[in-house]
Amino acid sequence: MSTINAYAAKTKEADLEPYDIKRRELLPNDVKIEIEYCGVCHSDIHQVRNDWGNSKYPVVPGHEIIGRVTEVGKEVSNFKKGDLVGVGCMVDSCQECESCKQDLEQYCENGMVATYNGPDKHLGGHTFGGYSEMVVVREKFVLKIPENLDTKAVAPLLCAGITTWSPLRQWNVKKGDKVGVIGLGGLGHMGVKFASALGAHVVMVTTSESKIDDARKLGADEVLISKDEEQMKKHQGSFDFLLNTVPVGHDTNPYIGLLKRDATMVLVGAIDSVDLHGGGLIMGRKRVAGSLIGGIKETQEMLDFCGEHNIVSDIEMIDIQNINEAYERVIKSDVKYRFVIDMKSIKN
Amino acid sequence: MSTINAYAAKTKEADLEPYDIKRRELLPNDVKIEIEYCGVCHSDIHQVRNDWGNSKYPVVPGHEIIGRVTEVGKEVSNFKKGDLVGVGCMVDSCQECESCKQDLEQYCENGMVATYNGPDKHLGGHTFGGYSEMVVVREKFVLKIPENLDTKAVAPLLCAGITTWSPLRQWNVKKGDKVGVIGLGGLGHMGVKFASALGAHVVMVTTSESKIDDARKLGADEVLISKDEEQMKKHQGSFDFLLNTVPVGHDTNPYIGLLKRDATMVLVGAIDSVDLHGGGLIMGRKRVAGSLIGGIKETQEMLDFCGEHNIVSDIEMIDIQNINEAYERVIKSDVKYRFVIDMKSIKN
Repeated sequence: MSTINAYAAKTKEADLEPYDIKRRELLPNDVKIEIEYCGVCHSDIHQVRNDWGNSKYPVVPGHEIIGRVTEVGKEVSNFKKGDLVGVGCMVDSCQECESCKQDLEQYCENGMVATYNGPDKHLGGHTFGGYSEMVVVREKFVLKIPENLDTKAVAPLLCAGITTWSPLRQWNVKKGDKVGVIGLGGLGHMGVKFASALGAHVVMVTTSESKIDDARKLGADEVLISKDEEQMKKHQGSFDFLLNTVPVGHDTNPYIGLLKRDATMVLVGAIDSVDLHGGGLIMGRKRVAGSLIGGIKETQEMLDFCGEHNIVSDIEMIDIQNINEAYERVIKSDVKYRFVIDMKSIKN
Repeated sequence: MSTINAYAAKTKEADLEPYDIKRRELLPNDVKIEIEYCGVCHSDIHQVRNDWGNSKYPVVPGHEIIGRVTEVGKEVSNFKKGDLVGVGCMVDSCQECESCKQDLEQYCENGMVATYNGPDKHLGGHTFGGYSEMVVVREKFVLKIPENLDTKAVAPLLCAGITTWSPLRQWNVKKGDKVGVIGLGGLGHMGVKFASALGAHVVMVTTSESKIDDARKLGADEVLISKDEEQMKKHQGSFDFLLNTVPVGHDTNPYIGLLKRDATMVLVGAIDSVDLHGGGLIMGRKRVAGSLIGGIKETQEMLDFCGEHNIVSDIEMIDIQNINEAYERVIKSDVKYRFVIDMKSIKN
């Protein structure tokens, strides 16, 4: 076991502070990674503050990890020292259930092991995430990062990226489809980039007129201000697909009205109660579905697609010492569109 | 125009009473039908009492109509005098939009004409339903009724039947699937019969232990009492499909928990706000969809299937003079499972 530097919240009320954690010695299938960058996800904040009621303290957040391999276990065949790699929201799963066999480890029927706050099978207690110097991860859960991309801007692809990519692929979004992306934050900005790269006619659906220019820069063909009833009426019943990235409970009914008959809205952010009227679904045979991150195979496909199409996140870099301020800004949606921590700063 | 006897509610507060209505003279594509039986649907009560805020008075309810053809327009080719026919929830649609072209007239983009309380294109005002002696309907919206079935028990197939049949077919329910039917009323009892006839392993999901025996008689392989937490836990994550026939707003979350990953619950009754937690959908990539009655082609397919498999509704016959008492009993779920009016009684 190694003791390394990390940043953790020690109670629900506390700010993130320096904290020493343990990482396990390498098992035969393990990869040791020196962390270079770690993205800041809204769910880091939910976990630190126990918003979902399942946090275990100390919480070392971080599941958008980019780094270089420093050592590999003796049975590791896909990675070698020096490789540029990533780790997303999961570090293990049973590998035996129907979901795992179908490369859908995120729905592992025996429970996937989350990158932080998951049950640690090796050291006991719970797992610690990427706000730290180093991580040891089972090879199967390590991703190859295309070397041609801006490395630090790749970090958010591991959560915000795959969370939006997976439903777009699952529901077969294709050239010419009219696709709405609801909410322009960390997830939404990736949704716009991906839907646009897949050839869809992309409409950014946002409450805020201040986001029109940015949405267009990201690739949106149109911007629909959801508070404007006239505009909403104009787009009524016209969407093939809606990707709803709103991270909190909200009224979904105006969005259901935007869908065509038989069309689907996928929720990826709202782990919360939402308002829904049965009539909106019944009258047009419409659908609301959910989607959770994506499997490892699909995440690698997304990263390869990003390498080919030169897609990364729009980010703002911070040092770990500024993490508490960054959290406040995330809550106010005051970031374009994802904070990434330069993990070298942990040694400052 | 003919003036005929009907029963109508003249205000929101009024009981149903005798009332004279007009029917149009036959157009070239029209079929004139002497009504023998008319089913009593819960939505008749919603419309009579303006629960959905869109009622037009006087309301002559009734959209589960069975009768004999008495006369046909000169261009009618599929029906002749004496034929046993049915009329369901629609009497017209534009026939030109994408939905109509796909035999989904119920989702007509220009608005289908409901059998009652719809816009009457010919006489002006609104349409009048089947609580009457006679009806004139465009040929395209008239259905052939298999002569081998118990005629009066066929009436509810025109609404309760097709409303449950359509989602079972749309979502490809097949032999061996574990299918839950939520709620044992007019719709639910047909859902059990159809899912069973399609070869599914059918679980009746009900709040009430008093329904166990009846559910089994209808064809349910198991009965799950939804108020029993132990039983609900046992069935967690095990259903391929849920047909939710609950006719009012309710908490859908316990039912979402019953679905397998990627499985769907279809709402057919709740034209109302429902409680839904995004997390329940997200964590298993689950789906909630809606479904409205069915198209004319699909309704004919259902009737033919019923003819082959000898499926009809379980009914209780009433005279039209007892309709107000029947409404009170429907509201208390005190009917197994559908009232059907013997329309000869209108002449009493």
